[in-house]
Amino acid sequence: MREIRLVSRPTGFPIASNFELVPSAGLELVPGTALVENLWLSVDPYMRQMMDGLWSLGAPGEGRALGRVVQSLTPAYEVGTIVFHTQGWRTHSVVTPETSRRIDLAPGVPLSAHLGILGGTGLSAYTGLKRILQLQPGETLFISAAAGGVGTAAARIARLLGAGRIVGSTGSAVKAKWLESEVGVDVALNYREGSLVDQLAAAAPDGIDAYLDNVGGEHLAAAIDVLKPGGRIAWCGAVSTYNGDGVVAPHNLFEVVEKELRLEGFLVRNNLDLRPELIEFLTPQLQSGAVVSDETVVAGFEQTVDAFLAMLRGENTGKMLVQLG
Amino acid sequence: MREIRLVSRPTGFPIASNFELVPSAGLELVPGTALVENLWLSVDPYMRQMMDGLWSLGAPGEGRALGRVVQSLTPAYEVGTIVFHTQGWRTHSVVTPETSRRIDLAPGVPLSAHLGILGGTGLSAYTGLKRILQLQPGETLFISAAAGGVGTAAARIARLLGAGRIVGSTGSAVKAKWLESEVGVDVALNYREGSLVDQLAAAAPDGIDAYLDNVGGEHLAAAIDVLKPGGRIAWCGAVSTYNGDGVVAPHNLFEVVEKELRLEGFLVRNNLDLRPELIEFLTPQLQSGAVVSDETVVAGFEQTVDAFLAMLRGENTGKMLVQLG
Repeated sequence: MREIRLVSRPTGFPIASNFELVPSAGLELVPGTALVENLWLSVDPYMRQMMDGLWSLGAPGEGRALGRVVQSLTPAYEVGTIVFHTQGWRTHSVVTPETSRRIDLAPGVPLSAHLGILGGTGLSAYTGLKRILQLQPGETLFISAAAGGVGTAAARIARLLGAGRIVGSTGSAVKAKWLESEVGVDVALNYREGSLVDQLAAAAPDGIDAYLDNVGGEHLAAAIDVLKPGGRIAWCGAVSTYNGDGVVAPHNLFEVVEKELRLEGFLVRNNLDLRPELIEFLTPQLQSGAVVSDETVVAGFEQTVDAFLAMLRGENTGKMLVQLG
Repeated sequence: MREIRLVSRPTGFPIASNFELVPSAGLELVPGTALVENLWLSVDPYMRQMMDGLWSLGAPGEGRALGRVVQSLTPAYEVGTIVFHTQGWRTHSVVTPETSRRIDLAPGVPLSAHLGILGGTGLSAYTGLKRILQLQPGETLFISAAAGGVGTAAARIARLLGAGRIVGSTGSAVKAKWLESEVGVDVALNYREGSLVDQLAAAAPDGIDAYLDNVGGEHLAAAIDVLKPGGRIAWCGAVSTYNGDGVVAPHNLFEVVEKELRLEGFLVRNNLDLRPELIEFLTPQLQSGAVVSDETVVAGFEQTVDAFLAMLRGENTGKMLVQLG
């Protein structure tokens, strides 16, 4: 039983020595709790922000995880129950029915999808597209970080919702090609190659109707430039700035007035009521193979920090996950 | 018959020599048109932007105006008809029924109100409060440039809509006092005196629900800081930046994500469908005296440029108008 602790706060981009892999502490099973052996851990961009303050030094990181109950002192869970919880960054966690949730596995749906397109990642995409952007059939959608977890889920869900044209940005030619051939993105841009705003304008000559942003900075500015009058932006992250470089606020923000744009932020944790709808919507699509949960899987608990850093560098395609055991 | 032409483009703050008062040219009455003697001219912040490009050099400025038909070659208007049109900055204008609109004067409602709280100014306030912010009874509202035309109209309309607490900002202690004693603003801040964000937080200790912004810059940043989670911003201008100084984009824009804010721009010219509703809503309030159209009136066509410059300096309370004749 091991855990990974944050032992120093990153300055800029995190480094391996900000973390320490140590034997677990404080895993006390008391009545009403269950011991969970973790099977899958999620590493996500928002964790970089938590490391600046919300995560305690000397304590294990927190994160979404899936595991199997191996000991139970609660009538809610029998041994073998699969649960979701948010005490990741450790091989074993003690949970209560209040701090965890039973996963009902549908036939033909892989467990890991519950950390991917059916999990918080997919729910971020679904909330942005459905509740905030209210994407309409035939519309042109732009997705930043399109090859990442939220980005791939958004591209696949947007197609199911009838998007007319999907433009995605990513940081390499290989990922751009993959987005077009595998994920169904109509035009994938490599933002490291030439002007982003020029590429975006060429990819959407009539302008974009809606933008799902988890990058901020230059991407947000380019989208504001290319949005049609009355366009909408659903904003859920600014990964371009989490390591202290880059500027969130776009120079052309006043186009929000001139083009009557709507810029609206959202947090997936305040939109959990949409989860049953998402699972009902996607389960048959996953079962038929019409949709997959795009994932990059790293094997072994001791690889968690490496997986997190690789995700920050954009080395994953789809959701970055750590498989344990 | 005279007109005021833009003869050079302002660099920064406009000066009197950017303009020239000359005899009218091109006032040709042809079938289908009418000659209007203007009675009231409006001077507005947006005109500063027009002077950077949209207004032609050597041509008269454009702007909202009210006048009386003195000659008519159209069956739509008889001599004496009062019309609204957008060919201001001149003593006389030639209009068509398509480029103008008959004003139906209600008893007890002053004509000038049709350039004030019943005109584009009031419609900006109403659109922002009703359509964009969807202000709910009991909510706390912040209004920037509260002593100006849109600001005073917004404060009075918000009170009718049931706003719980109205906080307004202005640039002098005298105007702040006037806002509280005459306009019904609950707390008026002088942004030139101390920290704006600290004053705003003190005036709205539970946070603000909604913000009507026609200033941008530091005001927008302060509002973002003090808005409650889920708060809304209706953005219709950035007068703090029209003269080339100041920055539109707030440093704390990412709070839009962290607090799930909605920032939405609007242009009054795309919301003219709300005008009948506004006039129906306000006419009985104006007739009973429950609401007034706050105005600063400058007399004499030759004072138009002075009135415009004084408005840019914030010397008016309520809508700045020029009365002719």
